[in-house]
Amino acid sequence: MLRRKRRLILRKRAAPGAAPGQLVADPTAVETRTSIIAYGPDQIEEIPACDPARIASLSGSRPVLWVDVSGLADHEAITAVGTAFGVHPLAIEDAVNTHQRPKAEGYEDHVFIVYRMLTPESGAEGEQVAMVVGRDFVLTFQERPGDCFEPVRQRLRHAKGRIRQLGPDYLAYALIDAAVDSYFPYLETLGEEVEELEDAVVKDPEPGHVERVHQVKRELLSLRRAVWPMREMLNALLRDEHEEISATTRTYLRDCYDHGIQLMDIVETYREIATGLLDVYLSSQSAKMNEIMKVLTVIATIFIPLGFVASVYGMNFDTSSPWNMPELDWRYGYPAVLGLMAAIAFGLLWFFHRRGWLRGDRE
Amino acid sequence: MLRRKRRLILRKRAAPGAAPGQLVADPTAVETRTSIIAYGPDQIEEIPACDPARIASLSGSRPVLWVDVSGLADHEAITAVGTAFGVHPLAIEDAVNTHQRPKAEGYEDHVFIVYRMLTPESGAEGEQVAMVVGRDFVLTFQERPGDCFEPVRQRLRHAKGRIRQLGPDYLAYALIDAAVDSYFPYLETLGEEVEELEDAVVKDPEPGHVERVHQVKRELLSLRRAVWPMREMLNALLRDEHEEISATTRTYLRDCYDHGIQLMDIVETYREIATGLLDVYLSSQSAKMNEIMKVLTVIATIFIPLGFVASVYGMNFDTSSPWNMPELDWRYGYPAVLGLMAAIAFGLLWFFHRRGWLRGDRE
Amino acid sequence: MLRRKRRLILRKRAAPGAAPGQLVADPTAVETRTSIIAYGPDQIEEIPACDPARIASLSGSRPVLWVDVSGLADHEAITAVGTAFGVHPLAIEDAVNTHQRPKAEGYEDHVFIVYRMLTPESGAEGEQVAMVVGRDFVLTFQERPGDCFEPVRQRLRHAKGRIRQLGPDYLAYALIDAAVDSYFPYLETLGEEVEELEDAVVKDPEPGHVERVHQVKRELLSLRRAVWPMREMLNALLRDEHEEISATTRTYLRDCYDHGIQLMDIVETYREIATGLLDVYLSSQSAKMNEIMKVLTVIATIFIPLGFVASVYGMNFDTSSPWNMPELDWRYGYPAVLGLMAAIAFGLLWFFHRRGWLRGDRE
Amino acid sequence: MLRRKRRLILRKRAAPGAAPGQLVADPTAVETRTSIIAYGPDQIEEIPACDPARIASLSGSRPVLWVDVSGLADHEAITAVGTAFGVHPLAIEDAVNTHQRPKAEGYEDHVFIVYRMLTPESGAEGEQVAMVVGRDFVLTFQERPGDCFEPVRQRLRHAKGRIRQLGPDYLAYALIDAAVDSYFPYLETLGEEVEELEDAVVKDPEPGHVERVHQVKRELLSLRRAVWPMREMLNALLRDEHEEISATTRTYLRDCYDHGIQLMDIVETYREIATGLLDVYLSSQSAKMNEIMKVLTVIATIFIPLGFVASVYGMNFDTSSPWNMPELDWRYGYPAVLGLMAAIAFGLLWFFHRRGWLRGDRE
Amino acid sequence: MLRRKRRLILRKRAAPGAAPGQLVADPTAVETRTSIIAYGPDQIEEIPACDPARIASLSGSRPVLWVDVSGLADHEAITAVGTAFGVHPLAIEDAVNTHQRPKAEGYEDHVFIVYRMLTPESGAEGEQVAMVVGRDFVLTFQERPGDCFEPVRQRLRHAKGRIRQLGPDYLAYALIDAAVDSYFPYLETLGEEVEELEDAVVKDPEPGHVERVHQVKRELLSLRRAVWPMREMLNALLRDEHEEISATTRTYLRDCYDHGIQLMDIVETYREIATGLLDVYLSSQSAKMNEIMKVLTVIATIFIPLGFVASVYGMNFDTSSPWNMPELDWRYGYPAVLGLMAAIAFGLLWFFHRRGWLRGDRE
Repeated sequence: MLRRKRRLILRKRAAPGAAPGQLVADPTAVETRTSIIAYGPDQIEEIPACDPARIASLSGSRPVLWVDVSGLADHEAITAVGTAFGVHPLAIEDAVNTHQRPKAEGYEDHVFIVYRMLTPESGAEGEQVAMVVGRDFVLTFQERPGDCFEPVRQRLRHAKGRIRQLGPDYLAYALIDAAVDSYFPYLETLGEEVEELEDAVVKDPEPGHVERVHQVKRELLSLRRAVWPMREMLNALLRDEHEEISATTRTYLRDCYDHGIQLMDIVETYREIATGLLDVYLSSQSAKMNEIMKVLTVIATIFIPLGFVASVYGMNFDTSSPWNMPELDWRYGYPAVLGLMAAIAFGLLWFFHRRGWLRGDRE
Repeated sequence: MLRRKRRLILRKRAAPGAAPGQLVADPTAVETRTSIIAYGPDQIEEIPACDPARIASLSGSRPVLWVDVSGLADHEAITAVGTAFGVHPLAIEDAVNTHQRPKAEGYEDHVFIVYRMLTPESGAEGEQVAMVVGRDFVLTFQERPGDCFEPVRQRLRHAKGRIRQLGPDYLAYALIDAAVDSYFPYLETLGEEVEELEDAVVKDPEPGHVERVHQVKRELLSLRRAVWPMREMLNALLRDEHEEISATTRTYLRDCYDHGIQLMDIVETYREIATGLLDVYLSSQSAKMNEIMKVLTVIATIFIPLGFVASVYGMNFDTSSPWNMPELDWRYGYPAVLGLMAAIAFGLLWFFHRRGWLRGDRE
Repeated sequence: MLRRKRRLILRKRAAPGAAPGQLVADPTAVETRTSIIAYGPDQIEEIPACDPARIASLSGSRPVLWVDVSGLADHEAITAVGTAFGVHPLAIEDAVNTHQRPKAEGYEDHVFIVYRMLTPESGAEGEQVAMVVGRDFVLTFQERPGDCFEPVRQRLRHAKGRIRQLGPDYLAYALIDAAVDSYFPYLETLGEEVEELEDAVVKDPEPGHVERVHQVKRELLSLRRAVWPMREMLNALLRDEHEEISATTRTYLRDCYDHGIQLMDIVETYREIATGLLDVYLSSQSAKMNEIMKVLTVIATIFIPLGFVASVYGMNFDTSSPWNMPELDWRYGYPAVLGLMAAIAFGLLWFFHRRGWLRGDRE
Repeated sequence: MLRRKRRLILRKRAAPGAAPGQLVADPTAVETRTSIIAYGPDQIEEIPACDPARIASLSGSRPVLWVDVSGLADHEAITAVGTAFGVHPLAIEDAVNTHQRPKAEGYEDHVFIVYRMLTPESGAEGEQVAMVVGRDFVLTFQERPGDCFEPVRQRLRHAKGRIRQLGPDYLAYALIDAAVDSYFPYLETLGEEVEELEDAVVKDPEPGHVERVHQVKRELLSLRRAVWPMREMLNALLRDEHEEISATTRTYLRDCYDHGIQLMDIVETYREIATGLLDVYLSSQSAKMNEIMKVLTVIATIFIPLGFVASVYGMNFDTSSPWNMPELDWRYGYPAVLGLMAAIAFGLLWFFHRRGWLRGDRE
Repeated sequence: MLRRKRRLILRKRAAPGAAPGQLVADPTAVETRTSIIAYGPDQIEEIPACDPARIASLSGSRPVLWVDVSGLADHEAITAVGTAFGVHPLAIEDAVNTHQRPKAEGYEDHVFIVYRMLTPESGAEGEQVAMVVGRDFVLTFQERPGDCFEPVRQRLRHAKGRIRQLGPDYLAYALIDAAVDSYFPYLETLGEEVEELEDAVVKDPEPGHVERVHQVKRELLSLRRAVWPMREMLNALLRDEHEEISATTRTYLRDCYDHGIQLMDIVETYREIATGLLDVYLSSQSAKMNEIMKVLTVIATIFIPLGFVASVYGMNFDTSSPWNMPELDWRYGYPAVLGLMAAIAFGLLWFFHRRGWLRGDRE
């Protein structure tokens, strides 16, 4: 699942110079569905597929209105939702444009937040969530149906914790927290792969490992691109003191910010380990090469001189001349030559022994 | 197109110590053409080739005056335009000098902004745009005719969006945004190249790849040099609260700043991937070398000792002495020697097998 | 002890989207034990195993109350302790969740501090300590029994130094200081290993060294992950001017902060040395390879041509033709060939000598 | 010119512990010459070699007095100049001590500025200029006669631009600007060298290239040491709002600061390219090695087995035994052996072909 | 002297959890000696070995009292000195504990400063100096007798410069300045070594060079550890505006701070050069290897095929069959074979020539 090839830039941007706030059709966008949860301390109402036209009338009917738009194909419906809650056109454009950098921006009477979450459907690339937090509403715009918000919905339905008592800012926190948390299992999977690779590279390095290390580094790189601005976004939310975010919620966001730092921390640690693995791989490769060369050298340098000696006595000089190869006629010529060869061989072995080439490098 | 060699420093600077604000003739400068678009909410007038002398009289006639000077050869005309709008001499010098670093500087009653855009004519090097934003005018100075502003002109002509309602600061934003956007398609091309190289290096590394990786890194380096200060320039515009830039426009610039960060982000990501590719390449080279050495070693170390044995029995010792090579006269001498050779060969093969050298490294 | 494999992520996090402040059962958590030390300048009372129900009644009975909870299995008891002292639910959650990043956070009327300490039981991974500092109490939550606080308890018991005179903030300082100090012996052990490796790599590099260097770098990496945020935590305590921390204690914390910087300093220095060791190792490997190649080349290139000459005179051409190998019949053919061989050998030796290949690279 | 060896530390410092403000004789210092240019909007007077004693009397006679001291051997004269204008003793010490880091420091009624300029005489090391800017004077202390200020003098003489209208701060700006500009031509030379090396390394790498790359990196390193603090110095001048520097001049300094950043930018870009070149070099070396090894392996592994076969049939076994080398007596023994050899050779060639070793790596 | 092995952590710390301000016996501490210099503008009195008991009575007797304690074995005496001047217990602890990080800390009525100096006795490790600066006294605590303060004492004795006119803060500055200056000669020695290594590695690389480069990098690393916090300490002194430090002295400290930056600058530059040297070394090693391989390959690939041809004609096939080696009986068989061999040799030489392997890589 993690391995499918991902393009790093996919931004279907408006043509350069186009008017801002203009929505550009994305051919891969999914059909738009709008569902609504309206709740207060004692009540909750869910409208799974709501007609955009009805939304305006709902506004203000309950303490908190969560309008969840998933699928970004229907620009008219999205604009209708945005207009109903007075959302700035630039925010709407950013919500539809699915390759935003996570960020938090204050507008006159709402905060616009973009972040990414991992869902089983989205794979490692994740899915963009754009969120508008107002005084009595939260709008979320997701790329696709399927999200990591189900536990939050359960808490709303069963009034678990204080979520129904608190305002839209707390709902916003709960959704961001769920998105941050959605990265941990994926990171754990990557971590396991790094550790497997670590063992494999040390024990039995193969060329394929480098490719896998490169792949993991690339995953971590794109993870960092998602997580780093998320941390900044949370920091901006904490620092900028938007009116829509209460002090209580800020305490919770601080905790969430902490999780973001932890994510970054782990990503960076894995990147450093992965980079270090290449050094281990290369040095282990070079050790293997040294060993191979040593065997070749020991055998070749012993037998090449011996072979030469044998060749000499294989020459066909006319032995009638006393100057031509008298050794061939000696009674002990052959044993003498064998002795010479043994002497050469042992001499070279002693030389190699002294250099330490006969010891194996790997125990 | 991207590949043409670019010099990194091309600044035709004034001689060291020259008076500031002095315009230096650049032999490659293009003929100057001044075109004007004057507009307000309900009206628009275009003067494609305007005589510099007439410009002063136009000033103030319409809510917004956009004077677009392309080609920087005619210093007199440029100075005339600058003087007509009270532009600081240093700003004029910077506008003519085509190797400025992108920046935004506040002068008494105007903001001076320099940035770069990519046009089909300019190739990867881009083209400098200097812009002066006043209370009722925008001046732009481009190196060459041909720019990425046509869609903005269309929006002006057809009163698309709010561009005709808003002031010169919004026009300035629209032009900067178009320039930032002009980098995305080029970056996408580079990204595709990086990804192609990634596949190629992993599957079948060739020395030419290193050169291409180096080339891409160099492109990214000079892209970063253009984009990084653009980000700073946008940040300065947002932070410095120039009177000429309204709060509304600042909201739009914030969006544009975001795009700048995204550009940087992608450039940095590609640089890290490209750097990582060299590691992959080197380790794959070293794996290939190991494999070659293994084949050489296996074959040489098997046949060199065998060859030695054969040479021994090719020696011409006088076999009349019983000490000289009695093996040659044995009935089964030849089979015995062949057997010895087979034993040596199998011994070495077993040794190599135990070391794992007979397994291929690449499956 | 240091070598046991550690997972980098072990956070038993709540399911994504779970309500904050919700305590999640950790199957490896240890049985909870609560011990109390209540003291003032002239008195001290220890209650080794205190019933959580009794704690509330103790509150305020003495100038300072130190409630030490070790083992985090019993969430009810922990919540009871927290509630008795008005601790924020998020702080309680963080105290139970044992993979927090060290941090200091101010709540309405207490400061919440998380840090790690090394104990003989915990190994290199360390153990989390969560601490709540109020106006007349200090709560500590440890993962396991066994800590590095015994000397502090002794100082309390024997009223050594000013610890009994001063308030809970000074006790908090003493505990943090003990935790920071607990890292020094471990770092000293790592330092000794780095220095041993340094000697070993320079004198007699072996492939196993790379693995050990990688291991040490990994240890240092996870040490840095513990120590770096500890330094930040101390900085936050110094900077944020929490009411619960007096100016006197801040002076002591400044000293402690200094120790934290020293820790980081040493960790970073060791990391740089370890990284440098890989370069030393690789260059020493490549020097060894060069030497092996030189021996092979010298011997092979001398004997291969000589062997060729010998082979030529081993050919069986019919010497009845005067054109076929007349040398074989010369009176001094054999000495002449030997002389030729000697000339070739000396020629090559002279060539190698001039290239400096006969000098050993290692003295 | 660029290549002459430079020591990185040349600071002839006072003995450690010496009193500050104490001038230390530098044996290489050049004879001191003091020249004066006194000017106002309508007048200018030059005194090429002025007696230090007369200087005090000149003070205040004209709107701006530029006292230019070149050569630092005569400490008395320098102290006299300094005292005449009330310069702080530490500033005088720094002016004489020729290895200062560029800096700007405010004293009670003057600003002390140190920077470096490149002159044809100074080579790449540059020459220190110390400058004191007061309300009606500028003092400059240069190491040697010969500077890059001639164009400024010309502008003064011919009242070019506004230089005669403005005060000593503008003169100071003009001198700093000339010094910053003096680095561009040198940097251009280095840039050309980097680009030449780039082409050379890619096309035909030689060991000498690494040394040249190292040399260029070293030049860039010491350039950075000069330029980086110059940028800081300009920043300090802009930020610290010294009374002696007017707002108008600050506008010009901002432009100059920009040039400083541009210098740094180019230096850093070249450093990155130079560092990348080493990777290209190493990978190209390793590709060459691979190719050499492939040729050796192909030829050796083909001919070594063939040679072995030939040796076998060169053995002198007594062929009277039917078990001893019956092949020798076969009618088609020789052709059969040749066929066997051809089969081995083609088998190995096929093996190498399948591994892709017969294709050249370089097209 | 520089080469003696140094441990990076030597901190004889108090047991973890010990009370702060508690002095721990260091077995290597040197006998304590207290000497006093009391001075004012017109008077000076030196008491070389003063009884600690007498010190209290001296306090306030002269405008400035410099109590210099060298050797830290006698904790009682040190505590007595500290108490006499009202020094904070933590400061006393830090003064005795000889592995502090350089720092400056303000206490109620004195500033506590720690830094390091190099003395001939201390070698590269340096010696800690702890200094307490009050309104009318300076206390210094040195590890050992022998320091770099003698020139300051001489200036005091001979009333050289303004040192006797100014207060204890100026004395403190003079001592810090002497310590900073004490690093320059050592750095110069290291610089010379780096430059020697540079020449050696480029001209004739040996494996020993890598070890020396590593050694130098290590020295620079520990130098940086001493110098970097010294710079911070000076910055803190400048920034924190302690009452005990007058504005005049601050001007001098700014100069001293500058020297600290210069030290860092040089250390960093040397580190970069040293790191670059490893690249040069490795690439030169790899070039040597390439050359060795080329010689081996050229000679082996020429003679191995020739040897094969010779072996073929050394086979003993029964030449009575017309199919068996008819070449042996040809009249010109031998010259023909020699011709064949020459053809093969020239063919291969031409092949190598075309690949450029016959040119030497090093000119």
